[in-house]
Amino acid sequence: MTESFPRTAKTRLRRRPNRGFHDEATVFGILDAAVLAHVGYVIDGEPHVTPTAFWRDGRTLFWHGSARSRMIELQGKGLAVCVTVSHLDGLVAARSGFHHSALYRSVMAFGRTALVESREAKRHAMDAFVNRLYPGRAQVLRPYHDAELDAIGVIAMTIEDASAKIRGGGVEDDAEDYAFPVWAGVVPIRTVVGAVEPDDRLVVDPARPKDLARYAENARLDDVLLANAKDG
Amino acid sequence: MTESFPRTAKTRLRRRPNRGFHDEATVFGILDAAVLAHVGYVIDGEPHVTPTAFWRDGRTLFWHGSARSRMIELQGKGLAVCVTVSHLDGLVAARSGFHHSALYRSVMAFGRTALVESREAKRHAMDAFVNRLYPGRAQVLRPYHDAELDAIGVIAMTIEDASAKIRGGGVEDDAEDYAFPVWAGVVPIRTVVGAVEPDDRLVVDPARPKDLARYAENARLDDVLLANAKDG
Repeated sequence: MTESFPRTAKTRLRRRPNRGFHDEATVFGILDAAVLAHVGYVIDGEPHVTPTAFWRDGRTLFWHGSARSRMIELQGKGLAVCVTVSHLDGLVAARSGFHHSALYRSVMAFGRTALVESREAKRHAMDAFVNRLYPGRAQVLRPYHDAELDAIGVIAMTIEDASAKIRGGGVEDDAEDYAFPVWAGVVPIRTVVGAVEPDDRLVVDPARPKDLARYAENARLDDVLLANAKDG
Repeated sequence: MTESFPRTAKTRLRRRPNRGFHDEATVFGILDAAVLAHVGYVIDGEPHVTPTAFWRDGRTLFWHGSARSRMIELQGKGLAVCVTVSHLDGLVAARSGFHHSALYRSVMAFGRTALVESREAKRHAMDAFVNRLYPGRAQVLRPYHDAELDAIGVIAMTIEDASAKIRGGGVEDDAEDYAFPVWAGVVPIRTVVGAVEPDDRLVVDPARPKDLARYAENARLDDVLLANAKDG
């Protein structure tokens, strides 16, 4: 058993509770397999959803942007947010329109934002971000200038409440519909890596370096990211 | 020139305006290439972001769920929402941490929700959803039962305000960093279709039918969906 997040009014699944999970292993597995999160927040009573790359340290999620962007300025003061991550794994074509569906894994995580203040804390957070995508890469990059660290706004959000939802399996038709003469089945969907493209002004070996070793052509992106997360 | 959405305080890009677009062709092209949207809404002052399959008719977006789900119940009464769609197209590994980036296409669309009320309007909307994914399929399915249409809640949201953001290209390092001895480049990312899996209780030919013709193994999902959208 791993630790679990609380089941609250916000995260309890009212319908199909068998698709809901609150344990850290499931929640973190879905988060760590993704590059992008969709961050929801409220400005003047109105919802905003911004897609952004993110990373995780324990129960805390991080993302960054220009320190002068409106999102970072507002979130830096402390805002309630909902961070949602989803993976589309397939399309389900059933015998009735009613049972058409998708295969997916998703997490909704709720908490409040805080600004990462010091240059040292920002450097540490940004290094963790780079290393999450490319293990060991932060150590070989041109070091940060202070002005760069000052220009970056890093937001931290400790998860207070989270739930995962997973729809796997295949076609789930009504019993009497299996005799209906129409094709039904699943279209699997996956997100994969293409052939890595070296920059054309390199002064080093253009071959894919060690920190990108897992980005082999046709590798599944979620597999690469989960393997990277296990290194950390 | 196509029609454009207004540039408002919500959707005007304050930084890097060259990455922002407000014309319908760009906005619709990004929307139509995706299955999932992330719908942001506010409950008791707190943001919620729910991933959901969606479809489009002109400037109106649609999604559905159980008529008794909390999201559908609330949105059915009319709520401000932000519908965000994003595609991850690559990872950019630069020579400095500061210039690490991602390639992406995204849209944020703002408006108010309304419930699609009548059975006929729901049937029409759901058929459009099925045909958007599988052209012509709605016509060959087992017809809806009235009880099914009553159990489905369909939400419509006419876009009042939308912007697209696109980051293409490659590595953008500082001029003086090109001499720094570290690898840099782009990891292309794409979402593709796997080999279609027929349900094992079919009473018809298990070969992929005409309405799934574009779901060839290794086809790009965004290409399939855009081609489907052009049929409509």
